[in-house]
Amino acid sequence: MSSKHMLSIFALGGINEIGKNMYVIEYGDDLVIVDCGGKFADRTFLGVDLIIPDFTYLLENEHKIRGIIVTHGHEDHIGGIPYLLKKINVPVYATRFTLGLIELKLKEHKILRESTLIEIHSESELNFGQIQATFFKVSHSIPDCLGIVFNTPEGKIVHTGDFKFDLTPVNKQYSQIHKMAKIGDEGVLLLISESTNAERPGSTPSEKEVGKHIEETFFNASGKIIISTFASNVNRIQQIVEATIKTNRKLALLGRSMVNVVSVAKRLGYIDIPDWLLIDARDVKQWPSERVVVLCTGSQGEPLAALSRLSTNSNRDVRIDPGDTVIFAASPIPGNEKDVTKIVDNLFQLGANVVYGAASKTGMHVSGHGYQEDLKLMLTLMKPKYFIPIHGEYRMLHLHAKLAEDVGVDRKNIFILNNGDVVDIQFQEARQTRKIPAGDAYVDSFGEEGIEDIVLRDRKQLSEEGMLVIVITINKSDGSRISEPDSISRGFVYAKESEQLIRNINEIAKGAVDAFKDPNIFAMKKAIKKEVGQYLYDKTKKKPMILPIIIPI
Amino acid sequence: MSSKHMLSIFALGGINEIGKNMYVIEYGDDLVIVDCGGKFADRTFLGVDLIIPDFTYLLENEHKIRGIIVTHGHEDHIGGIPYLLKKINVPVYATRFTLGLIELKLKEHKILRESTLIEIHSESELNFGQIQATFFKVSHSIPDCLGIVFNTPEGKIVHTGDFKFDLTPVNKQYSQIHKMAKIGDEGVLLLISESTNAERPGSTPSEKEVGKHIEETFFNASGKIIISTFASNVNRIQQIVEATIKTNRKLALLGRSMVNVVSVAKRLGYIDIPDWLLIDARDVKQWPSERVVVLCTGSQGEPLAALSRLSTNSNRDVRIDPGDTVIFAASPIPGNEKDVTKIVDNLFQLGANVVYGAASKTGMHVSGHGYQEDLKLMLTLMKPKYFIPIHGEYRMLHLHAKLAEDVGVDRKNIFILNNGDVVDIQFQEARQTRKIPAGDAYVDSFGEEGIEDIVLRDRKQLSEEGMLVIVITINKSDGSRISEPDSISRGFVYAKESEQLIRNINEIAKGAVDAFKDPNIFAMKKAIKKEVGQYLYDKTKKKPMILPIIIPI
Repeated sequence: MSSKHMLSIFALGGINEIGKNMYVIEYGDDLVIVDCGGKFADRTFLGVDLIIPDFTYLLENEHKIRGIIVTHGHEDHIGGIPYLLKKINVPVYATRFTLGLIELKLKEHKILRESTLIEIHSESELNFGQIQATFFKVSHSIPDCLGIVFNTPEGKIVHTGDFKFDLTPVNKQYSQIHKMAKIGDEGVLLLISESTNAERPGSTPSEKEVGKHIEETFFNASGKIIISTFASNVNRIQQIVEATIKTNRKLALLGRSMVNVVSVAKRLGYIDIPDWLLIDARDVKQWPSERVVVLCTGSQGEPLAALSRLSTNSNRDVRIDPGDTVIFAASPIPGNEKDVTKIVDNLFQLGANVVYGAASKTGMHVSGHGYQEDLKLMLTLMKPKYFIPIHGEYRMLHLHAKLAEDVGVDRKNIFILNNGDVVDIQFQEARQTRKIPAGDAYVDSFGEEGIEDIVLRDRKQLSEEGMLVIVITINKSDGSRISEPDSISRGFVYAKESEQLIRNINEIAKGAVDAFKDPNIFAMKKAIKKEVGQYLYDKTKKKPMILPIIIPI
Repeated sequence: MSSKHMLSIFALGGINEIGKNMYVIEYGDDLVIVDCGGKFADRTFLGVDLIIPDFTYLLENEHKIRGIIVTHGHEDHIGGIPYLLKKINVPVYATRFTLGLIELKLKEHKILRESTLIEIHSESELNFGQIQATFFKVSHSIPDCLGIVFNTPEGKIVHTGDFKFDLTPVNKQYSQIHKMAKIGDEGVLLLISESTNAERPGSTPSEKEVGKHIEETFFNASGKIIISTFASNVNRIQQIVEATIKTNRKLALLGRSMVNVVSVAKRLGYIDIPDWLLIDARDVKQWPSERVVVLCTGSQGEPLAALSRLSTNSNRDVRIDPGDTVIFAASPIPGNEKDVTKIVDNLFQLGANVVYGAASKTGMHVSGHGYQEDLKLMLTLMKPKYFIPIHGEYRMLHLHAKLAEDVGVDRKNIFILNNGDVVDIQFQEARQTRKIPAGDAYVDSFGEEGIEDIVLRDRKQLSEEGMLVIVITINKSDGSRISEPDSISRGFVYAKESEQLIRNINEIAKGAVDAFKDPNIFAMKKAIKKEVGQYLYDKTKKKPMILPIIIPI
């Protein structure tokens, strides 16, 4: 098979991180995107709320883009879509449930009407010029997930999406293992597979296990039951619904995303909740405690979500009373531990019985991502020539690479990439030599894109050392000083206790300006920065941001 | 037994937190302090490095203080001592090894010479007026740990210190269980016991288990071995020394605290390292890889510690080559997970074999704190009338309280406190009704105390929203404007891309000032803040700190 063009594969996000997944398959003039995720910024990104991929390469190659295929509806796969579509109006292909969640987002961003959304399913076939896409069903912690097979002139590329092998799935959405085996039999040139749980030995337990533990805990619970899980984990919610019915309780939903996602899932037929079961959160207090289940958001300790407000009894409708049972049906995602334990602490202070990870080990959560045996099974089914582990931090990628070696992939045919590293394939030979631009783009809490690195750098200095403004007016003709210096500090020292320090600063600034015989504002500022900076460092060992302001009059 | 005075017990730190432990026992005019710890500030405390207890109550009652007893040498029990001694020169009582570590600190703070340090051991008896203290040995993850018995006119108060029951301790420092049983037999009025592991069922494994796993890993290791653990865990270091000898390697120490603590432990006889075993870190490269072990600090991912520098190959003396083995002989303390995994990621990128918690489960760490069965054993031995769980966050205190109930302590005799809540005992009856001042005091990275809340609040606003300075000069007699407004922003918007915004701000500020017919500077500033603030919020949804500066000339 001879190829006129080169087949190129790269990640715009998702490598050395859990979040903002975005992968690209390009052949000649045809470019297909897989996913467009967001990543929540941790506290070191001051004032940044969401991180999305840098779209530079896509903007430069807009004419080639044939579409974006979305493997499933989790934030780290769909969170960036509104920002992409605002820049490039490209058709979005996804399954029914995934599209339902994408629609919620596009509605919020007020761009639903002008977007092109195309529903696909596991038997769809899409033709993008010389790239053709077919699909296979995978199990994960959200309904309607797909793996993708790209048929290209060079051969087949398989992208797994996020997956585990759940052989007893709650809603009978079975992984298409036979189809996967057939794909592998036909020959796979390159497998691109997710690595989230490459550190964990064994197989991922079935979601059904969680259902058993929820039921058992419901049967033994006292008081109201408040249970929190991911809104998108529709199968877990289905099991909570069933345990609610079995224990003769009513169900109230609390939290915007819980209400929204359950309504999408109900409307599209992914969840079965009898109408007589549901009560409004406002009516919870009218029912006896032992007749109520409150299903809410906030299992990750999100400070603005329902559970956080419940834990300080600041929700208008639902109160936690001593003896109520609060269940965390989700493990903290790494990085969220402290926020979660803070809420657990508060719930204990309210007198609740709290069922949570560390103290209960009751199996109230199973992962949606395959453990080592799942990953090896995928590798075995696909028997790829080349392998790229994705969707993970370095250690996960390295451990996944080891698993691939163990099942027979040649070490030199495994590529551990960074975002932006390109793997080029021609005549079935893969090489990794070039890079395209890839990085983080920042979105603030109001959905505005474009916080620059320089702004973040300033914020960091301001936040750690504070700042000092020094204002002096000068005569614009000869540079002589008109006013005494005036200094304002913030976040640096407590001004009321540092009068002498401020007086000394003013003296030094005065001296710096008075040394000039002409109105050289730039040089005056530089002198103030240097001399005051040196004095402050000697005196306080701090380096606040110094902003001299010289006003010529 | 009739009591003229009241016996009072409270925490100045250590409750609803892991860190800055400090407890006080007071009877009439006699006050004894237990421990004086620090707590490392997480990233939400901008620019704060260490948090220590608020000493207000102690300063107000300085004349009563008879001494401070230190249970053991961990940072969360000794880290605040230099700051306390700078304010109140009170005698410090501790065991030999604990004093060795305290001396290191006092030397750094240059107050060793004027401090009074008194060595005690498990058989010491101290008399503080009407309070008498005796001791019992406990096992923990550092040598020479004590529990304390306070004999008071009201009865016996037992403070456990940090403990586990390690029945096969590495250096034969056995817990004095028989002595504990005798104390319990004599009658304990109040038990104050640590709660760190109240969430964990079962018993804490022995430190000896770690030794086995280290030895096994050493025997199977390729290349250099780099192993990281807590510098203060002298018994674990002893086991690393022994595995090094058995595998015919040499040992190099890396990291300031590792070198310091090992030298104290050697000098005082707490560790046995033959001199021929040690090599200088500078000489590591002269030995074949398979003959070297590097023992270093940084197991918690501390960015400035040795392991972090090794992980980016930026240490001058030691290089990590592909095939080297890196062992984390410590689990991440909650909150440190991300820093640790970042280093693991970097080590994988260097080609090292990394043996760490998540992926290996090799038992390279055991806790120094008792699990539930250990806590129940202590409660059972002491049979207290009253119980105060300390040294833990709320959920741990509540779970520990439940354990106490399970072994027979009356629910109403258990006090779950906050820092500053006082338990008063008179005629053997305990009540909790009053509070004394207790809170956090902040120390910055240069050991300077006294970062005020207001400064931290400013830093937070600066860090999240940035700031905007607007300078206007006015005529001091009639308030008329002399200059055009001049604005500087930092950490807010990128100025080069926001020229129009800045122009509009200046126009608004001008309008605000021009509306005045007199030089009312205060009112002018207020008007600028309000009008510019409103404009910016409407326009950018941001609330930067606005600093108007009006200069009258």
